[in-house]
Amino acid sequence: MVITKEKIFSFEKIYRTNLINSISGFKSASLIGTVDSDGNNNLAIFNSVIHVGANPPLLGFLMRPVSVERHTYNNIKQMRYFTINHVNENITKNAHQTSASYDKEKSEFLECGLTPEFSKNIIAPYVKESNIKIGLKFIEEQEIKSNGTIFIIGEIMEIIIPDIVLEQDGYINIQKAGTVAIGGLDGYYNTKKIARYSYAKPSDELKEL
Amino acid sequence: MVITKEKIFSFEKIYRTNLINSISGFKSASLIGTVDSDGNNNLAIFNSVIHVGANPPLLGFLMRPVSVERHTYNNIKQMRYFTINHVNENITKNAHQTSASYDKEKSEFLECGLTPEFSKNIIAPYVKESNIKIGLKFIEEQEIKSNGTIFIIGEIMEIIIPDIVLEQDGYINIQKAGTVAIGGLDGYYNTKKIARYSYAKPSDELKEL
Repeated sequence: MVITKEKIFSFEKIYRTNLINSISGFKSASLIGTVDSDGNNNLAIFNSVIHVGANPPLLGFLMRPVSVERHTYNNIKQMRYFTINHVNENITKNAHQTSASYDKEKSEFLECGLTPEFSKNIIAPYVKESNIKIGLKFIEEQEIKSNGTIFIIGEIMEIIIPDIVLEQDGYINIQKAGTVAIGGLDGYYNTKKIARYSYAKPSDELKEL
Repeated sequence: MVITKEKIFSFEKIYRTNLINSISGFKSASLIGTVDSDGNNNLAIFNSVIHVGANPPLLGFLMRPVSVERHTYNNIKQMRYFTINHVNENITKNAHQTSASYDKEKSEFLECGLTPEFSKNIIAPYVKESNIKIGLKFIEEQEIKSNGTIFIIGEIMEIIIPDIVLEQDGYINIQKAGTVAIGGLDGYYNTKKIARYSYAKPSDELKEL
């Protein structure tokens, strides 16, 4: 089946949203924790967190246009720190519920059955129920002109993980941590490792496949 | 275990690269196909493709700094079209092998045992062995100042998928298509659906969890 651009534009909104959100492949499932200057904790699910660089250690994620009020964006700009917490199999329903529109005064932690947790280094709240927690400092934003979304970049200040998931070569076994992947806007998946391959060099090995 | 920023900087390069590449969560596994003005096909694996917007339909991905020669980047800038092809379970080894440094004249298709395929709408090559194929037109790039990486945005011109993976509400069942997820730089995972949730609205339902 070939779906052309013209066909995509002809679909009704929800159908098109489902289609285009699922075509990008599997995505990370992260709860981003922030706090405002009054001490109100905020938590929201994102599926766009990606690796930006290892030295310095940077992660980035995409936010929707800030034409409507965005608590996460405002809090990050104001307080400069945020946390990224992996969603695991035990909290997919709670995590998905953070995508509801709560008033600024309401904490998604309380409303969605999750627990804020703090370290001495980062003012923003972590999610206690998450197994992989990352504390970041905001360092850059780039607006995507095509649709007004904003790519936010943070520098990793600390990583909090169970000892058991860290492998000898530095690889974090996120499957063992129960981390899930997202398909589309609302599909949650657990994973099973197929393989880890070595650093690829040119060779004739695969020509016979 | 808490790993501070200072500790991260103290790790040797490969250890740090493994750590930071795996901490972002699961990532999409995509082969990006391009062609140069001499007709040389190029194929490279990327794990940073994300959804940018549904209307217009946009995808984006992050490229490493262009201080060294980047065939994918140069081809996209020159020819304006590229393809994104999902990596599935049958071609993870071939896909990973495209990350080796081949000379510009060598086609990663031939070297890695994959087959170029063309549609009448897009000049860039698709991967025949991929089940989910997307043809895009380059529309924007944004440089991340913090480390010189470049976020490339393309508009979807066509989607080529098996009829069987398209569900009634527009959701593409990428698990059924065999699409894999990536952990770190070199870990490939298949997936199993846990749940799809409905659009979240504020409610008291989860307070009791």
